[in-house]
Amino acid sequence: MIVVMRVGATEKEIAGVVQRIEDTGLKAHLSQGAERTIIGVVGQIFPELQDMLEILPGVEDVIRVSKPYKLASREFHPIDTIINVGGVSIGGKEVVVMAGPCAIESEEQVIETARAVKSAGATILRGGAYKPSTSPYSFRGLGRVGLELLAKAREATGLPIVTEVMAPEDVELVAEYADILQIGARNMQNFNLLVEVGKTTKPVMLKRGLSATIQEWLLAAEYILAQGNNQLMLCERGIRTFETYTRNTFDVSSIPIIEKVSHLPIIADPSHGTGKWYLVTPMALAAVAAGADGIMVEVHPNPDSALKDGAQSLTFDNFRRLMAQLQPIAEAVGRRLAAPQEKCLR
Amino acid sequence: MIVVMRVGATEKEIAGVVQRIEDTGLKAHLSQGAERTIIGVVGQIFPELQDMLEILPGVEDVIRVSKPYKLASREFHPIDTIINVGGVSIGGKEVVVMAGPCAIESEEQVIETARAVKSAGATILRGGAYKPSTSPYSFRGLGRVGLELLAKAREATGLPIVTEVMAPEDVELVAEYADILQIGARNMQNFNLLVEVGKTTKPVMLKRGLSATIQEWLLAAEYILAQGNNQLMLCERGIRTFETYTRNTFDVSSIPIIEKVSHLPIIADPSHGTGKWYLVTPMALAAVAAGADGIMVEVHPNPDSALKDGAQSLTFDNFRRLMAQLQPIAEAVGRRLAAPQEKCLR
Amino acid sequence: MIVVMRVGATEKEIAGVVQRIEDTGLKAHLSQGAERTIIGVVGQIFPELQDMLEILPGVEDVIRVSKPYKLASREFHPIDTIINVGGVSIGGKEVVVMAGPCAIESEEQVIETARAVKSAGATILRGGAYKPSTSPYSFRGLGRVGLELLAKAREATGLPIVTEVMAPEDVELVAEYADILQIGARNMQNFNLLVEVGKTTKPVMLKRGLSATIQEWLLAAEYILAQGNNQLMLCERGIRTFETYTRNTFDVSSIPIIEKVSHLPIIADPSHGTGKWYLVTPMALAAVAAGADGIMVEVHPNPDSALKDGAQSLTFDNFRRLMAQLQPIAEAVGRRLAAPQEKCLR
Amino acid sequence: MIVVMRVGATEKEIAGVVQRIEDTGLKAHLSQGAERTIIGVVGQIFPELQDMLEILPGVEDVIRVSKPYKLASREFHPIDTIINVGGVSIGGKEVVVMAGPCAIESEEQVIETARAVKSAGATILRGGAYKPSTSPYSFRGLGRVGLELLAKAREATGLPIVTEVMAPEDVELVAEYADILQIGARNMQNFNLLVEVGKTTKPVMLKRGLSATIQEWLLAAEYILAQGNNQLMLCERGIRTFETYTRNTFDVSSIPIIEKVSHLPIIADPSHGTGKWYLVTPMALAAVAAGADGIMVEVHPNPDSALKDGAQSLTFDNFRRLMAQLQPIAEAVGRRLAAPQEKCLR
Repeated sequence: MIVVMRVGATEKEIAGVVQRIEDTGLKAHLSQGAERTIIGVVGQIFPELQDMLEILPGVEDVIRVSKPYKLASREFHPIDTIINVGGVSIGGKEVVVMAGPCAIESEEQVIETARAVKSAGATILRGGAYKPSTSPYSFRGLGRVGLELLAKAREATGLPIVTEVMAPEDVELVAEYADILQIGARNMQNFNLLVEVGKTTKPVMLKRGLSATIQEWLLAAEYILAQGNNQLMLCERGIRTFETYTRNTFDVSSIPIIEKVSHLPIIADPSHGTGKWYLVTPMALAAVAAGADGIMVEVHPNPDSALKDGAQSLTFDNFRRLMAQLQPIAEAVGRRLAAPQEKCLR
Repeated sequence: MIVVMRVGATEKEIAGVVQRIEDTGLKAHLSQGAERTIIGVVGQIFPELQDMLEILPGVEDVIRVSKPYKLASREFHPIDTIINVGGVSIGGKEVVVMAGPCAIESEEQVIETARAVKSAGATILRGGAYKPSTSPYSFRGLGRVGLELLAKAREATGLPIVTEVMAPEDVELVAEYADILQIGARNMQNFNLLVEVGKTTKPVMLKRGLSATIQEWLLAAEYILAQGNNQLMLCERGIRTFETYTRNTFDVSSIPIIEKVSHLPIIADPSHGTGKWYLVTPMALAAVAAGADGIMVEVHPNPDSALKDGAQSLTFDNFRRLMAQLQPIAEAVGRRLAAPQEKCLR
Repeated sequence: MIVVMRVGATEKEIAGVVQRIEDTGLKAHLSQGAERTIIGVVGQIFPELQDMLEILPGVEDVIRVSKPYKLASREFHPIDTIINVGGVSIGGKEVVVMAGPCAIESEEQVIETARAVKSAGATILRGGAYKPSTSPYSFRGLGRVGLELLAKAREATGLPIVTEVMAPEDVELVAEYADILQIGARNMQNFNLLVEVGKTTKPVMLKRGLSATIQEWLLAAEYILAQGNNQLMLCERGIRTFETYTRNTFDVSSIPIIEKVSHLPIIADPSHGTGKWYLVTPMALAAVAAGADGIMVEVHPNPDSALKDGAQSLTFDNFRRLMAQLQPIAEAVGRRLAAPQEKCLR
Repeated sequence: MIVVMRVGATEKEIAGVVQRIEDTGLKAHLSQGAERTIIGVVGQIFPELQDMLEILPGVEDVIRVSKPYKLASREFHPIDTIINVGGVSIGGKEVVVMAGPCAIESEEQVIETARAVKSAGATILRGGAYKPSTSPYSFRGLGRVGLELLAKAREATGLPIVTEVMAPEDVELVAEYADILQIGARNMQNFNLLVEVGKTTKPVMLKRGLSATIQEWLLAAEYILAQGNNQLMLCERGIRTFETYTRNTFDVSSIPIIEKVSHLPIIADPSHGTGKWYLVTPMALAAVAAGADGIMVEVHPNPDSALKDGAQSLTFDNFRRLMAQLQPIAEAVGRRLAAPQEKCLR
């Protein structure tokens, strides 16, 4: 950490800052420039220190040098994390495709979709049993019944399942059914929930919050890792910007950034990332070209009668076309699509 | 709801949209323009309809005309909501001041601060027992012990207390101690938590999420109101923008907007809204000038040794100076500061 | 245009709005809903109308239905625009690569770079003679001398050149040398400059402004098209968001959006879009996978001694590696890279 | 400037950075931490240095410590700048009110408005002769004729005039008529225009760009100051955020920030800052409470027939009401409203 003193800061002010640093058991290292003094802080920095120093007389600015996360960082963990989900590897050479309906609506819907996406090459089934909803008057999912339908679809197709868990008290139940526990964007900083999934041994997929910086996202990951669960992957799903044409701005650049600063696998969700079905295919291709370890897309037998997010769902035909284009893109960046398994290993 | 058809949409496409609308029990009302056809949807709109129609062939855009919230809206509830908090009225002619430390640290700290802010004119004591924290390595509050210390401070000063509840399972406990249940910005869309506080009869203060539009904020309010709890006030605390000088951009304009579109009282939190103590006073004055029903500010005996957010806390002296300036501002807009009570009525 | 009346708007208020619409020579078309009245405006809408109606008593909202741009719109011009730049086609089946230094520094630098990028497969040479600069103390380009050096590089390699013009009074001079006139992001709404390049017959590349919505970008394009110059291509170069890891957030999704709503070719600039050289290659691949008609990247013989934007420039080696990956990506989406020409046709 | 080396950077990489720094004539100052090495750069930093160092092997980050602007900075110029505009002082104890129509439409309109705003207490007349317009099909102002009408209104009322100049080639003409040259938000980084007004001796008002950070705004100010014109004031007019209820988010907090970091006067424009007339009064009061040296508001005899921005214009009555509330607010923060003069001193 570096403390930048104001131009013209007095000797007394400088001494005050040094004193405060040494009071906390750290060392201060002075550097006298032409215009101003800079004080380096050496030792184990704690998060509150920046605030404490910023407020002292004569201080212009306090700059954090080391990253506030460690377990999620590639600097301290250079080797890629590879996660095994029911026999499917995530984070290795192969690109995984997670597909399925936004919300689980009926047995027929989920099984028909599971079969269709598997036959097109998807390796994991997605589907929501618990749905966050901006309006209290919207459909909020089938709950436990939805989980049971997902399990039936896994039974029928061999596809592992990823589904969202929204509350700490639901973690145990959802973990019984799911192969990957998804933390939604709105819950990225629901710290109790992060701690709870961190205590399980299930793979977790942490979506980026609508207004989360990459650093905050990795700090949220750190919450889960700090509990001992290192079966963690991240998922880019768009950020909030001034642009209103799309529901969110799908931040493709976060994919190579995560790859650079972290060892965790990175999945891309162009369905939520754009909110419009006709943008899903080009953005899925873009994500894989940029290095994503997998994509997650919404597929529905009848998007125009979907109870949730029909406008961003692909039909079976459109999904097949996407898969056909995805394979050569994956190969162009030295990877290949993972093939679906016969049976999910649990 | 209005469906805008594409230029050159066919008769068949138009008929398809009309059919889909009538299938859901609503009425379609065609309007043929020079360039394109527009279809009005008449009847009780449900949230999923927009998605369903957007995806139909020939549709260019679907525009929602009525607001998606009702209970929070002034259109359907023209009279100001006034909330009684232990004898203090919020939302009426008087401006309330909530003040206290960011986090409760010790009995001495909270009682000393409660006395100081009361003697300067504050009417409600704020203080965090449960603290959200971006980093897993930061202080996260004293929990139940913090609640007990807050209760002691109320006992000692007569000030009602406002404190944050972060998880649905904590609502019962926090409601035993608190006079106002605060929902933090990161939890604005923690829908389980909203439902839980909606089931209580305690006054609730709902902070605006970092990237929440005013409409989303009111929809979150609607979750609470829909459960039957109408003792609800809102709190502006800054939004996330590209500007990095301040922690957030304190959106003062949301104050008169809320006043226009909703009947709920609106409080302003310039401490979190700016993140810098020297901006708190001017922004508190600005908020009251813009029509806020109250302000919430952080005050600490020794900001430079605070365990949390010292950089945005006022000293006792600075808080007294703020109060001295606030009174004439309140009068300039036809209001006055509420006076502290001798005893909190519970 | 649709006027949404308030719930409870009076007959008189409704009549007032109808009157105002008819006063301007347009027709009003009433639609009485359960809760409120909606008034459609039929006829040739002018931009000021929205403002005029919004302010009338009883009006809740005024919604624009038709797009405010026409010449740039695919609805009114369904066929792709293909631009011929010195023999190179932009907007057709082939993907063009524009490469070169951010700023022109010396004859040696520009010619060495032009040869290197041509031998790696680039089809157009980029380079700045006039450079916008946030600080008055930064290098602002060689001006006319830079243009002459660019012309020498074209002579030496046959590559057409694209270079920025920053002021209306420079258009004539820059047009003498350039094959494409580039309008920079900061000048996207420099309306005098737009009009000036619109009066020439030179191909123009219009960069998206830092905080421009797609609609505003197309309105800026409309300024140029309205002057009669239809040799226009657009260039995505990142937008300003809250994320600070990258200089801008490179909005890849604007590429398929532009393709959908406009007939103009779309180029992607991942160098400015990210600000970091190690993100340029993945984001260039992503842009082509998403459907870009071309990319523009900064290449410099010695990025660490570049006078401008070295941190986002590729070395010759990195550029060659990018080109090797780009070809299969282009093929995966049914296109191919354009081959460099022997001679620029002027 | 501080160079943060990567954890595990080699001796050779560190030496390479030191060498590069010393090659530019500056000094390097090493600081070995537990985890990593930090290198301070001592001497006269130039803007390109950051880029040059960021790209060197082993470098994690380069942090700028000193501000990139000097002439605009309070650190180097502690005393408030006070500007004399035709006899009116801006930046001193008095708060000035600039009022008038968005666009000049006719002699009657401008003179009637000038008289009305003067009689309500305004000290400066605003009005646009050259109007930036997002659409090429909108009204773009009367040009020179508008300037002449403004001059007539000054003659008739004694109010000095502020009006926008949009192009370098118009500076001379506009300066003949105007008492303050306004640079609009879209032109904040039109560097040629900044240089041109910097060469005059006229007071200049520089509006903040829609997506400009405070630092970029002050760097734009530095362009003008660097040319020798120090008669400069700034104007906050709202920034672009995700919120769509208002046209922009009026950043009131920039007012006390500018006061802290700069000596230049700061004006607030709540008309453009909000885009809605009913928000203008509360936000004008907020701005003065937060410390603004003046406000600029749009007033029109008939807002609903205004050629430009009627929806954000006050009627004469509303303006009088605003002035009545503004006086006590100014007094509450220890200031008073400037009184209009009989005659403009030119």
